[in-house]
Amino acid sequence: MKIGIASRPDDPKSLEYAKELAAFIEERGHEIIFEESTSKALGISGGEPAGEIHADMIIVFGGDGTVLRTVRQMKKQLPILGVNMGHVGFLAEIEPEEMREVFEKIEKGSYTIEKRMRLSLKVDGEYIGEALNEAVIVTSRPAKIIELTINIDHIPAERFRADGVLISTPTGSTGYAMSAGGPIVDPWIESFLIVPIAPYYLSSRPHVVSSQRRISVELDSTKPADLVTDGLYITELYNGNVLSVEMSKEPALFVNAGRNFFAKVDKKLKRL
Amino acid sequence: MKIGIASRPDDPKSLEYAKELAAFIEERGHEIIFEESTSKALGISGGEPAGEIHADMIIVFGGDGTVLRTVRQMKKQLPILGVNMGHVGFLAEIEPEEMREVFEKIEKGSYTIEKRMRLSLKVDGEYIGEALNEAVIVTSRPAKIIELTINIDHIPAERFRADGVLISTPTGSTGYAMSAGGPIVDPWIESFLIVPIAPYYLSSRPHVVSSQRRISVELDSTKPADLVTDGLYITELYNGNVLSVEMSKEPALFVNAGRNFFAKVDKKLKRL
Amino acid sequence: MKIGIASRPDDPKSLEYAKELAAFIEERGHEIIFEESTSKALGISGGEPAGEIHADMIIVFGGDGTVLRTVRQMKKQLPILGVNMGHVGFLAEIEPEEMREVFEKIEKGSYTIEKRMRLSLKVDGEYIGEALNEAVIVTSRPAKIIELTINIDHIPAERFRADGVLISTPTGSTGYAMSAGGPIVDPWIESFLIVPIAPYYLSSRPHVVSSQRRISVELDSTKPADLVTDGLYITELYNGNVLSVEMSKEPALFVNAGRNFFAKVDKKLKRL
Amino acid sequence: MKIGIASRPDDPKSLEYAKELAAFIEERGHEIIFEESTSKALGISGGEPAGEIHADMIIVFGGDGTVLRTVRQMKKQLPILGVNMGHVGFLAEIEPEEMREVFEKIEKGSYTIEKRMRLSLKVDGEYIGEALNEAVIVTSRPAKIIELTINIDHIPAERFRADGVLISTPTGSTGYAMSAGGPIVDPWIESFLIVPIAPYYLSSRPHVVSSQRRISVELDSTKPADLVTDGLYITELYNGNVLSVEMSKEPALFVNAGRNFFAKVDKKLKRL
Repeated sequence: MKIGIASRPDDPKSLEYAKELAAFIEERGHEIIFEESTSKALGISGGEPAGEIHADMIIVFGGDGTVLRTVRQMKKQLPILGVNMGHVGFLAEIEPEEMREVFEKIEKGSYTIEKRMRLSLKVDGEYIGEALNEAVIVTSRPAKIIELTINIDHIPAERFRADGVLISTPTGSTGYAMSAGGPIVDPWIESFLIVPIAPYYLSSRPHVVSSQRRISVELDSTKPADLVTDGLYITELYNGNVLSVEMSKEPALFVNAGRNFFAKVDKKLKRL
Repeated sequence: MKIGIASRPDDPKSLEYAKELAAFIEERGHEIIFEESTSKALGISGGEPAGEIHADMIIVFGGDGTVLRTVRQMKKQLPILGVNMGHVGFLAEIEPEEMREVFEKIEKGSYTIEKRMRLSLKVDGEYIGEALNEAVIVTSRPAKIIELTINIDHIPAERFRADGVLISTPTGSTGYAMSAGGPIVDPWIESFLIVPIAPYYLSSRPHVVSSQRRISVELDSTKPADLVTDGLYITELYNGNVLSVEMSKEPALFVNAGRNFFAKVDKKLKRL
Repeated sequence: MKIGIASRPDDPKSLEYAKELAAFIEERGHEIIFEESTSKALGISGGEPAGEIHADMIIVFGGDGTVLRTVRQMKKQLPILGVNMGHVGFLAEIEPEEMREVFEKIEKGSYTIEKRMRLSLKVDGEYIGEALNEAVIVTSRPAKIIELTINIDHIPAERFRADGVLISTPTGSTGYAMSAGGPIVDPWIESFLIVPIAPYYLSSRPHVVSSQRRISVELDSTKPADLVTDGLYITELYNGNVLSVEMSKEPALFVNAGRNFFAKVDKKLKRL
Repeated sequence: MKIGIASRPDDPKSLEYAKELAAFIEERGHEIIFEESTSKALGISGGEPAGEIHADMIIVFGGDGTVLRTVRQMKKQLPILGVNMGHVGFLAEIEPEEMREVFEKIEKGSYTIEKRMRLSLKVDGEYIGEALNEAVIVTSRPAKIIELTINIDHIPAERFRADGVLISTPTGSTGYAMSAGGPIVDPWIESFLIVPIAPYYLSSRPHVVSSQRRISVELDSTKPADLVTDGLYITELYNGNVLSVEMSKEPALFVNAGRNFFAKVDKKLKRL
């Protein structure tokens, strides 16, 4: 096999584990290709940008943020296996202690590739990118409420005043959406999770909406708002701007070396 | 067309509207068949048990409970159109004022039939019935906590102490599940909504799980619990009893005369 | 000093620790008096009913339930120190490992006695008892909604449909009230915490109400409800029955050997 | 009596009602003094800054924001009666239709003056002002989590990661605190309501803490945060900055012409 390796370049512990596993994998006769910033940080030549790596999978060392960044950088999605060096790690699923054992399973073919739905996003009809976790519209003036209209299939379904709203994938349901009060959503369900952030109307509830529908959010507010996707600031939105959300044609790919999604998640929830 | 008519037999207002619409429909040259308890209450002969009516659809007058009962009584599901005589009415979707207008739309074929997933339920392997809204396991001793294990695909995913738990369909997400803190789930998504009732563990969150998975709930508690489906008491459960839930092969069928699910729901939420 | 000792009589571990600490205390020259069921379980003669013990304080071994029972049995409240043998233990505050060390602090006078407000309860004007944690009114038919009116200072403040409602003290805010979604309330605040259980109306929120006010709850429902106080079933309530709640003149007394309430609570919340 | 009148200067409807009630009051032989910006907007001479008005009370026309601003401007607190021209109006308690009738009650002395606790705030020991509703610390980078330590009586009680936290008075419990998931707190209870905003830890719950305690919040985060009080931006906070909160010695004063706080609040909640 040909295995890509990417690490948080600024975290010595992640880099060390990356190096260690790379050595273990090469010893067993496989080819390693380092992501560019990782190889630089390790003082190794020959790295390639994440977007240009050709490999059977990429093993990522870091927290959920490192996984999100790697997915964003890949032009064509390769399967990802995340080794969790962070606090909880819903996307970086395996712990460093078990990385060798998991790799041996993978070597034997004892794993599956899971598709994880992403969002394809437009502002006022113009494409602005994809998101694996969520797109957030949030007041850009701290503690100033904004007014939003949520359209589902082009029909206004809900209008509310809130700090903001987030449109999440099932993968993102264990991230910011959870802090805002959303449910855990099975990654097998292609759907949009819509969660208002600190809504002023008590009737505003999280909604789980089929990915076959079209979602758009209109800012109805003289106060501006920020658009943030997967934790990255994208742009400021003004009165009348519309964010449209559909399911991306290119899902992210995750290596699952055999554990049950819900058993993993609930174990992690207990740690929060 | 041949139209079935069923009403709450103990509510004069529902019966009156049922009679009124039946007359309107017959005048327009269609055939009417009354459900048995409805015809008795109206003093009309010739009614048939809901389970034996053959018709293009059944129009039901009452609250959500009347709709649930009619669905339960049908051996083979016929499309249902609910006229709401109750408080809010998520299942009984149309208001009495618009019943004529909606029927005229139906006459012109301007409607769709929506499939609504139901649950197929077993206790310790023995079939006990279907549910359109939800199955609830709840302590049978008031205010005494029980312990439950939720298995997803035969793997224990979560174990918690609570008053109980409910497994709901998307249709049930606007019912008891909502009171217990669950999200609104799109009926287009075939899924199980699992909501703990007054959980003692703060990490217990609502879960939305694909209908392709198998769910079971085990009572791990010396205190007994009640099993209730769609508001009807079914049986008492004891330590070690297991409720298994799958998607039923026979969905309920609802007549949709043209309105958007979410716009309707959110209008109703505002009334709660 | 004269120290009372009470234990869960059916839990060998609690009994063993009770015996151990009693020996330690006697060795240091203090007098021990066992609660009756505890002395019986230990095979020691000379126990007294909890209600008749005269002592400087009672040390209780068990979970929160054992503390609640001891408080209930005392005619005149003595200060209580709870040794937690249960799962989390908000009322049984100290852990068995630290019981000797805490007793040495107490011996030196390095402790305070905290008053903990209790509820004094009447049904239709007739006194039915006190509660340290909460009074709960909950549907006696599983999963059947009841309708309740909450009066504050004799004026209807809120009317809602729910599984039930609980009126909690600040002490009870870490118990059932928390499972139902209530906030943590400082025991220094004499107040009633009113929390609806699975309310059908989305506008129903927890309320924290001054103990100077009078609270009453009226059952407005053809379906009966159960009244449960501190986890004990008291009576069934019917349509029109009224539960009145005031602050009891006899607070419970707790020994605090020096720790901050909130630091303790938040440490325990993390374990849930 | 001598009555101050203040209005939103930019809202014609508020100004009109202010003028109308002023005429009504003068006709009945009382003296009127307009707040400066109100008199300017009305083209009337002789207005005085809110901070310098001497009167028996000030009647304020506008939304909750107008009431908050007037309270902030007064050096010595005068009793306030708010006439609600806005959406819901928890602070502006009476509706324009009833303003005459309420004034006649006041004329007869049939009213009470309620004290409403305010917060006195310091950053790193330096006084920064008072707040009637709440102080909010919120991430200044949209959707970037910050880490906060809450100290109660100088002891770290809780540490969490969240979008932010708010410290509210009981008066503020129907404002932003409610959107963030806090309970309704009786204004008779002098207390701090601490509510985390979108907390990442599931064990983070709202706390109601006695006003006799000292609260401080420390920012433990490389990311900066904004401090906002009663909806006004105050300053940016950095890693290690500490906000200290005590009960102000100068409460706000509200005219209550006879209605029950909870009945009013719950009526308004239904409108949200």
